[in-house]
Amino acid sequence: MPHKVRIALDAMGGDHGAAVVVPGAELSLRRHPGIEFLLFGDRTVVEPLLEARPRLKAAAQLVHTDVSVKMHDKPSQALRKGRWKSSMWLAIDAVRKGEADAAVSAGNTGALMAMAKFNLRTMARIELRGETVVLDLGASIGADSGHLVDLAAMGGAMARVVFGLERPTVGLLNIGVEEAKGLEEVREAGRILREGHWPQIEYAGFVEGDDIGKGTVDVVVTEGFAGNIALKAAEGTARQLGQILKREMGRTLATRLGYLLARRAFRALSDKMDPRKSNGGVFLGLNGIVIKSHGGTDAEGFACAVDLGYDMVRHDLLAKIGQTLAGHESEAAQ
Amino acid sequence: MPHKVRIALDAMGGDHGAAVVVPGAELSLRRHPGIEFLLFGDRTVVEPLLEARPRLKAAAQLVHTDVSVKMHDKPSQALRKGRWKSSMWLAIDAVRKGEADAAVSAGNTGALMAMAKFNLRTMARIELRGETVVLDLGASIGADSGHLVDLAAMGGAMARVVFGLERPTVGLLNIGVEEAKGLEEVREAGRILREGHWPQIEYAGFVEGDDIGKGTVDVVVTEGFAGNIALKAAEGTARQLGQILKREMGRTLATRLGYLLARRAFRALSDKMDPRKSNGGVFLGLNGIVIKSHGGTDAEGFACAVDLGYDMVRHDLLAKIGQTLAGHESEAAQ
Repeated sequence: MPHKVRIALDAMGGDHGAAVVVPGAELSLRRHPGIEFLLFGDRTVVEPLLEARPRLKAAAQLVHTDVSVKMHDKPSQALRKGRWKSSMWLAIDAVRKGEADAAVSAGNTGALMAMAKFNLRTMARIELRGETVVLDLGASIGADSGHLVDLAAMGGAMARVVFGLERPTVGLLNIGVEEAKGLEEVREAGRILREGHWPQIEYAGFVEGDDIGKGTVDVVVTEGFAGNIALKAAEGTARQLGQILKREMGRTLATRLGYLLARRAFRALSDKMDPRKSNGGVFLGLNGIVIKSHGGTDAEGFACAVDLGYDMVRHDLLAKIGQTLAGHESEAAQ
Repeated sequence: MPHKVRIALDAMGGDHGAAVVVPGAELSLRRHPGIEFLLFGDRTVVEPLLEARPRLKAAAQLVHTDVSVKMHDKPSQALRKGRWKSSMWLAIDAVRKGEADAAVSAGNTGALMAMAKFNLRTMARIELRGETVVLDLGASIGADSGHLVDLAAMGGAMARVVFGLERPTVGLLNIGVEEAKGLEEVREAGRILREGHWPQIEYAGFVEGDDIGKGTVDVVVTEGFAGNIALKAAEGTARQLGQILKREMGRTLATRLGYLLARRAFRALSDKMDPRKSNGGVFLGLNGIVIKSHGGTDAEGFACAVDLGYDMVRHDLLAKIGQTLAGHESEAAQ
């Protein structure tokens, strides 16, 4: 029987806390009986939910804490109040100590990013946009060329696990596609990726902001400052366009009737735009995996985030990153 | 009679070249009889168009060149082929030499940015997103704190001219709103703006990527690398959502009928998303104004870009930037 996958859960995170986390864990356990859960949270809340689910209870261990990070805490507040003792911190800490293979939280993104970075020295925030892996989205800022190359290896390994690709294409985000353009660090990383041998990724050159989510490459690599701003600009645009459309559709009898007839199309569009329907983000370092599930998600959404963590561990994501980097280094050493 | 506003035109720029530029100039002249035009382009093409428009001809001077930048030239190609002699270069050069107050081109954006930067040492690419002035979008990259403060003054002056505001609010783009977050240069610029006295702008702190175009502040200031990537990410998102909606609307009879009934709403949405309907971008330095009109625009669109140039000159934009900066410096010197 293969090694169990051990997942640490922040049982108090998200808009609905344990009421979503516990049923979500149960759903994921049904699909992946090889999971063992470590739950961190308030026992008076979590225990009754576990009691009602004997199968999950048998696969789970509960560690009590009565401290939790609030959804609207600023990252600095969360670190001050929640370090060492909050359910979010303890879940991440279980990964650092090797007691869990991955942590999952639906709590506040800024706090999770700050805690993961502080505790795991995590290097990258990764999200999937359409068929593209995008990193880093703000876990680190001001990357040098070596860091950008590490990000290319991390993103490449992620695309292999998540999309099942053998040799994903990787692009560096820049403000033009010509080799002479952009920041020196980005051009230098381009040289390293172009001139080296990378058996596990295919370097495809520079890409621009409108290539994110378009599928030009499987992996888009960027420094975290620009990446985070681009991600939020794209989210803001989608939200604003949705609001305009909603307003315009309500204006006349004809548009309202048209809306009713075309509801199906609008539902498809809002599904694509709904962050709850997308995979949660991933915070990834060379020594740990933390999955962010969206705060307002339901049990099925939370289960998807747990599934993602399970897949990443099962496919040995961290080892694959090491191989991608080592593959190159052993070539370089010859 | 007030001083004439002298506008240099790249008569060959854009998808339709002189066939749009000349009628566009005529439209703008009707609205602003105080304009004098300097046209750069191929005389065999431009002269017949001028002959048919006696009033414009009387207010215009044509300088012949048979070199022009193609819409798909890369910036480096355009600089190599078109420096000193193309219609685009000569229009910008007229501003540098003080023969014109502003230049307008519907030509290739990358080439225009490269030439403006090379010739005018231009500092910022500015665009209007909704009710917000955003800068810099890629004319300079890797700004230090002093440069970011200059950008705040430029954007503030622009908002006063374009939106008629007395004391526009200015935000610095960052990856979080807390003072301790983000790049050192951005935090330092925040300190300078917070602690100084700025009679002509009101500093509103950090803003995030989803605040662009939302109206949180009148001016969003960012370094050009992150700004350019964010702009293109937002444009790409809008385009992708438009494509999804179009596809979904064509799927069934009901959605197609719904589309017909709600056409009005879709037209309103695509108007908002159509770059041709928005103002052209502006490339702005402390010593020159260059207006970018969209490449596929018609005469009315080109006339709007000329109008914007006219307004900026009439309202003494460059002098206002100087005042904003000087206002602060004289306070600081006390």
